[in-house]
Amino acid sequence: MKLSEIGEFGFIDRLRRRAPGGAELVLGIGDDCAASRLAPGELLLTSTDLLIEEVHFRRDWSDLKTLGRKCVSVNVSDVAAMGGEPSSLYLGLGIPAGFGVEDLDAFADGVLAACAEYGAVLAGGDTCGSPGPLFISVTVQGRVPEDQLLTRAGARPGDLLWVSGRLGESALALRELLAGGRPGPSAANAHHDPRARVALGRALAAQGLATALIDISDGLLADLGHILDSSAVGALVESAALPLGPDLRASLAADPSLIDLALSGGEDYELLFTSPPALAPAVAALGTELVPVTQIGRILPQGDGLRLLDAQGRPRKPSRSGFNHFGS
Amino acid sequence: MKLSEIGEFGFIDRLRRRAPGGAELVLGIGDDCAASRLAPGELLLTSTDLLIEEVHFRRDWSDLKTLGRKCVSVNVSDVAAMGGEPSSLYLGLGIPAGFGVEDLDAFADGVLAACAEYGAVLAGGDTCGSPGPLFISVTVQGRVPEDQLLTRAGARPGDLLWVSGRLGESALALRELLAGGRPGPSAANAHHDPRARVALGRALAAQGLATALIDISDGLLADLGHILDSSAVGALVESAALPLGPDLRASLAADPSLIDLALSGGEDYELLFTSPPALAPAVAALGTELVPVTQIGRILPQGDGLRLLDAQGRPRKPSRSGFNHFGS
Repeated sequence: MKLSEIGEFGFIDRLRRRAPGGAELVLGIGDDCAASRLAPGELLLTSTDLLIEEVHFRRDWSDLKTLGRKCVSVNVSDVAAMGGEPSSLYLGLGIPAGFGVEDLDAFADGVLAACAEYGAVLAGGDTCGSPGPLFISVTVQGRVPEDQLLTRAGARPGDLLWVSGRLGESALALRELLAGGRPGPSAANAHHDPRARVALGRALAAQGLATALIDISDGLLADLGHILDSSAVGALVESAALPLGPDLRASLAADPSLIDLALSGGEDYELLFTSPPALAPAVAALGTELVPVTQIGRILPQGDGLRLLDAQGRPRKPSRSGFNHFGS
Repeated sequence: MKLSEIGEFGFIDRLRRRAPGGAELVLGIGDDCAASRLAPGELLLTSTDLLIEEVHFRRDWSDLKTLGRKCVSVNVSDVAAMGGEPSSLYLGLGIPAGFGVEDLDAFADGVLAACAEYGAVLAGGDTCGSPGPLFISVTVQGRVPEDQLLTRAGARPGDLLWVSGRLGESALALRELLAGGRPGPSAANAHHDPRARVALGRALAAQGLATALIDISDGLLADLGHILDSSAVGALVESAALPLGPDLRASLAADPSLIDLALSGGEDYELLFTSPPALAPAVAALGTELVPVTQIGRILPQGDGLRLLDAQGRPRKPSRSGFNHFGS
């Protein structure tokens, strides 16, 4: 079915009928604004992400339902990175010619499924035609008790450095896709369908286990760099300790330099956090309960800068540069 | 200066240093989310808008500072349309090749100036390259006391129908620009630099003067249609009563059919609201104090549908179709 047959308001109405409400959502899709009620003592968290065809994704690499899930997950990951819980999503869609109602429905399937999984509701948005590629903007709102907010600032020398899940497989998949190859299942899944680590972020915040927290979108060393800048500390990272998935491990056997995908690849959407050594057992217990966590280094005084040990434990010059959208 | 010389984080840092904080903004630009504190008894209002080059604007029609102002104003207008006050803005920018730092600074000038004018702060965003046109997403958050929320629902038969400012000049300017002409100053200003009617919306809400409220983005009759649908009422609109600016008045003398620009043109960003007749003196007083308001019709029972009188007071078949982004 062509989009022109149902029109803009027809599409909005389809979404409205499918999007469930939420306890704090007083007014959802269909008026000029969504209206939400927030509890006292809680902070509102808000983050916006853009996803642009040919920059962030290609439509021939992933089905539209999976793309819808990913758009939600990468945005919700920012709320997880503050120790918060997502509540509402707002979706902006610039839709190129040739997109059909079935395409939009498939995309919406993914968006709504991911929202449900994260306990968030689709509360509003905007749609229009695009003369260029598919443009997607996603804005998430979440909440966190005011005394539990976790930021990039707060890491202290002596803290241990932890990461959730596994690193580098999303970048490995992208590398293979760009070369015309077909990524292995673990790498493909990491790239196309990352999970936001909401339960882990909430647990770290609620139990007071982390001193600083960020999600890895630009690459481990680049995002660690944000913690170092905000916290005014240095850090040591041990390459041998990095948690790697099966596809990256297999590729590393042939080309050890691919470890850089775990250090600087980006789009992992894992949580990177710092925690005092005395709390290591409690952190490890969360790793057993929720999602694996791995200690990959520790925090040093600011004067020590960022130090990196290679897989053999030898000092290596680290590059903090992750993906730079305006890079030459 | 090329954008690649300062990089994505350089640009974010430039914005961060220029964006003032706000009392309720605990954490602004520079972490994974912005964090805000909200007062009990207030509702959070949120709205997202997309503005895409060649769809919503052309760069050769307006300077980038004015474009930045317009992006904020059209988004803030949605908060005004709920009786609310804007507090924070989140900006997503997909930036085409060839855009320089000076271009971004000019755009940011307009964004920040408009934010300051509306009492809102720029609290976050996302930037990346665009392989197509300039792509802008704006998300606004605002607040309204819970018992003052004004929606599209609530209009009752007998209510008077009011509109702020003047209608049709934005569409007149667009028509002339598309034909390669040069709009008059009043029309050009209405199109390129509309003002969100925040003070009027707040006053209507705080003084309990309106039963339903919307802003006119798709066109008077189309947006009135939303009120009729949501409120389950009909309406009568008198063309002779429509407030028109000097450029549209001059054009009408040559071509009376241009009255349709005031009825269906769109992008007026004026407030359209309904109010019981007994409150007319108080509404008129706001018009004297804040921005002119004009009574253009009244609300009828739902069975009467939407009725339109032409400039001579004769019944005319109304078209509720405003601008449809997916129209054929």
